[in-house]
Amino acid sequence: MTEEERDQFVVTPWEVEGQIDYDRLIREFGTQPITDQLLRRFEKEAGTLHHMLKRKIFFSHRDLDLVLDDVKSGKGFFLYTGRGPTGPMHIGHILPLYFSKWLQDRFKVNLYIQVTDDEKFLYEKRGLTLDDTRRWAYDNILDIIAVGLDPDRTFIFQDTEYMGNIYPLAVKVARRINFSVTKAVFGFDEQTNIGMIFYPAVQVVPSLFEKKRCLIPAAIDQDPYWRVQRDVAEPLGYYKTAAIHSKLIPPLTGTEGKMSTSRPETAIYLSDDDKTVRDKIMKYAFSGGQPTVELHRKLGGNPDVDVPFQWLYMFFEEDDAKVKKIESEYRSGKLLTGDLKQMLADRVSDFLNKHRERREKSSELVKVFKREGKLAKKMWATIYE
Amino acid sequence: MTEEERDQFVVTPWEVEGQIDYDRLIREFGTQPITDQLLRRFEKEAGTLHHMLKRKIFFSHRDLDLVLDDVKSGKGFFLYTGRGPTGPMHIGHILPLYFSKWLQDRFKVNLYIQVTDDEKFLYEKRGLTLDDTRRWAYDNILDIIAVGLDPDRTFIFQDTEYMGNIYPLAVKVARRINFSVTKAVFGFDEQTNIGMIFYPAVQVVPSLFEKKRCLIPAAIDQDPYWRVQRDVAEPLGYYKTAAIHSKLIPPLTGTEGKMSTSRPETAIYLSDDDKTVRDKIMKYAFSGGQPTVELHRKLGGNPDVDVPFQWLYMFFEEDDAKVKKIESEYRSGKLLTGDLKQMLADRVSDFLNKHRERREKSSELVKVFKREGKLAKKMWATIYE
Repeated sequence: MTEEERDQFVVTPWEVEGQIDYDRLIREFGTQPITDQLLRRFEKEAGTLHHMLKRKIFFSHRDLDLVLDDVKSGKGFFLYTGRGPTGPMHIGHILPLYFSKWLQDRFKVNLYIQVTDDEKFLYEKRGLTLDDTRRWAYDNILDIIAVGLDPDRTFIFQDTEYMGNIYPLAVKVARRINFSVTKAVFGFDEQTNIGMIFYPAVQVVPSLFEKKRCLIPAAIDQDPYWRVQRDVAEPLGYYKTAAIHSKLIPPLTGTEGKMSTSRPETAIYLSDDDKTVRDKIMKYAFSGGQPTVELHRKLGGNPDVDVPFQWLYMFFEEDDAKVKKIESEYRSGKLLTGDLKQMLADRVSDFLNKHRERREKSSELVKVFKREGKLAKKMWATIYE
Repeated sequence: MTEEERDQFVVTPWEVEGQIDYDRLIREFGTQPITDQLLRRFEKEAGTLHHMLKRKIFFSHRDLDLVLDDVKSGKGFFLYTGRGPTGPMHIGHILPLYFSKWLQDRFKVNLYIQVTDDEKFLYEKRGLTLDDTRRWAYDNILDIIAVGLDPDRTFIFQDTEYMGNIYPLAVKVARRINFSVTKAVFGFDEQTNIGMIFYPAVQVVPSLFEKKRCLIPAAIDQDPYWRVQRDVAEPLGYYKTAAIHSKLIPPLTGTEGKMSTSRPETAIYLSDDDKTVRDKIMKYAFSGGQPTVELHRKLGGNPDVDVPFQWLYMFFEEDDAKVKKIESEYRSGKLLTGDLKQMLADRVSDFLNKHRERREKSSELVKVFKREGKLAKKMWATIYE
């Protein structure tokens, strides 16, 4: 990577472009790397380590050490994550939710999931109507429920529905953020609409839902919101939020940017059937292999840029021994690109079939997660101010 | 008035300074003067004319002619006004509400009253907490109810309580207003907090509560909001709001600016007892009279700058013949400053005593106007989107 290329990557909540230099993001965003030592502490509290932690797919954090202190002391913490309902969900959207489920299961904590039907309407470049984002919200919630979250410890809410309960606290947050901050942090300008300008306050509020520390598992591109949160939380009598940042799952087509709803060839959708999954991977998945089988056998493939290998490594192959074997056999040339792609297609199809089987039962659970579960009921009876 | 002085007056929703040139405001704000011809049409539809109309205390309008068309055609209209709960209410705050009651009685229309507990907290210069503005909201609502509005045709709501019902429509409004507009219209800058920046959308929404034309009776300083409303309403499928603008009741201390909660000598509060009213008027009311009784008898007073006369003229003396007599006797020197002040003190005390008598019964009506009246019930069952 040349210096010039290195300078060209962009990571904001709305845009991810170029080859991301994650070490540089840690420096620029002012976060902490997840060290081996921190992982040992994590393992001690959790009893085990998720492979996305072990492999440092979650590579960066803010105050995760303090969260572990709070676990140890018995104070506990809570989880908050979100979904912007712009269209059908793909693999890149759902993995953080599976990771959140793992965290919820390990620590038996509450999980709040904000579905930002307001923001995705307000972000004009998308061209979505409010009806659109609310329709996608319903659809996406079915997928979120399919993850298998604890119905009594999870509250899924849409901003346009739950705003009545959070507006008083949102104005308290908003009073502490001026336009100049949103300009610096989010790149807003004079053409930005006033709903979008207010929105960061709406995204901060759920991190204040409990008088415990909040832990936000999300891709690194969402971090700007948490920086703002950490400036306003303490004066309002709450904790600065903790965060654990994942790398962005690369698009099928290469290791730059992220999967994009507007370029379907870059992503596997949760609704893609076995044939579509296989076809997309065979046709579009960027390969680190050689142009011919002969050359591949001779020179070997490059797993570092090979998207099928990256997807297996980042999520789909949990077994460390297997992933190591795949890597070395691919590098040596023993494992061919076609075999590796087939391996990924099988794993993804298997994952999606199980996901969709659970999704079949999601619609009858929407009421539970949004309104009637133990946590949901409590949340509707609470006005945050 | 010199050219320089003329240039120095300021009229914004947050600030009124200097000697206001109302003709110039009509030109600058782009509103229409209320003409004699329009008043004749108004009288025809209303059956009578309020003295604040006849005397052109309501001096300017937007689309009032179209409202009268809608009355004539049977389509009808609705009323919307508001109150910023920053402290105890004074005479200047309550007069527009008495005028609104008159309109409601004449036309049998719905009246929506927005109590902006969010905005007055967000406006940092006030230094009020959200608890403060909500406490004042309750207090002010007691005064609003004392005006004697129709409990089945009036809905009083606080933004921090009713936001859940209006947020979806507020984001639709907000998407059509960018920062640059709020900068031009309200003078916002980079230091303005993001709650304040969003707030104009919140103030626009009630003007869209019905698919009829909204008429807003308010002092001219609130007009900037309606200019923004008129830019966004039609593309959203609603009417541009109509407005009828009153002059600002001058402060006791002179004919510049407006009554101010932060300078108690400028205002008569609704809670001021007879003695306080009399003392304030005697001590502070700016007089157009001469320094000595002898000079006054000889030269006469100047009712044009005399605040006691102005208050009688603008509101407290309904009888045209009487007000004419007072004016000419004061100008001739027959009526002395002390007598005129006493006359006003009597009128104000009489008005306030009646107001407070009704206010005694307000607290039991809060639930009706906010939740249980016919209109209120319907409003809580409605989500605006």
